[in-house]
Amino acid sequence: MEIELTTLCYIEKDGKYLMLHRTKKKNDPNHDLWLGVGGHFETGESPDECVVREVREETGLTLTDYRLRGIVSFSDNDWYEYMFLYSAYAWEGTIGECNEGELLWVDKKDVVEKLPIWDGDRIFLRLMDEDIPVFSLKLRYDNRILKYAALNGKVFEYQ
Amino acid sequence: MEIELTTLCYIEKDGKYLMLHRTKKKNDPNHDLWLGVGGHFETGESPDECVVREVREETGLTLTDYRLRGIVSFSDNDWYEYMFLYSAYAWEGTIGECNEGELLWVDKKDVVEKLPIWDGDRIFLRLMDEDIPVFSLKLRYDNRILKYAALNGKVFEYQ
Repeated sequence: MEIELTTLCYIEKDGKYLMLHRTKKKNDPNHDLWLGVGGHFETGESPDECVVREVREETGLTLTDYRLRGIVSFSDNDWYEYMFLYSAYAWEGTIGECNEGELLWVDKKDVVEKLPIWDGDRIFLRLMDEDIPVFSLKLRYDNRILKYAALNGKVFEYQ
Repeated sequence: MEIELTTLCYIEKDGKYLMLHRTKKKNDPNHDLWLGVGGHFETGESPDECVVREVREETGLTLTDYRLRGIVSFSDNDWYEYMFLYSAYAWEGTIGECNEGELLWVDKKDVVEKLPIWDGDRIFLRLMDEDIPVFSLKLRYDNRILKYAALNGKVFEYQ
């Protein structure tokens, strides 16, 4: 099976997340949506190496305190992605320019309730707020429409 | 990058692990070694779906209480594997025949100190004993000899 391995990190400060408004990359499946920062594994990277590198590349920040929150297993037709989801709480450096879009601190509540984000992201952002143990979330999309969610192996009602 | 996704589960009871002595499969890179039970993801499976299915196929047991303990990122030359490591504490059913080898309950201490296991497995089995949060362990082998280990992004001294 052809699969993608990625990380996604929500950097927290004063009740806000550092959000990336994806406006700059060409042919970006996330175009105009808001996400945390992250990206694809490079050859042989571990998840933590990937998240630290991606955050540094996209924000200029070097994470000093971060934690795995969940594994998200995505599918959409013949596409499969396994995403390691992180929270980050401390870092060194200052935020620079990002070549994928604009970086902005947004109230956590507004991220979930107001920003244009993927429906599945709304689910895991709520789970992250609950401070539960590392979770496994399966999200099945069909042409970008969320069709099914399962949390730790059990169907998850999200509507 | 060509990668493999797998799960490995250590089922616990009375201070013992249910170990699989890999003796039956042809061309098994784990031939004659002892491991927990697990295997490769099927298309679109989440890690928890994979571990539950693999444990059922290999032992006949249906897990009812299990927990993700770590992500192990292996490499050996051009081969890469990401393994989701689980502990399991409760199940339904009884142990049956396994077509990959013999199943045996072994004292946890003996698993680490006496059985022929991979050097890297010895590291994560010790970490599992410490009851730390979900960890990321990177293990680099060279022709089956362990050359490098990193725990949560930091070099890990194991000798």
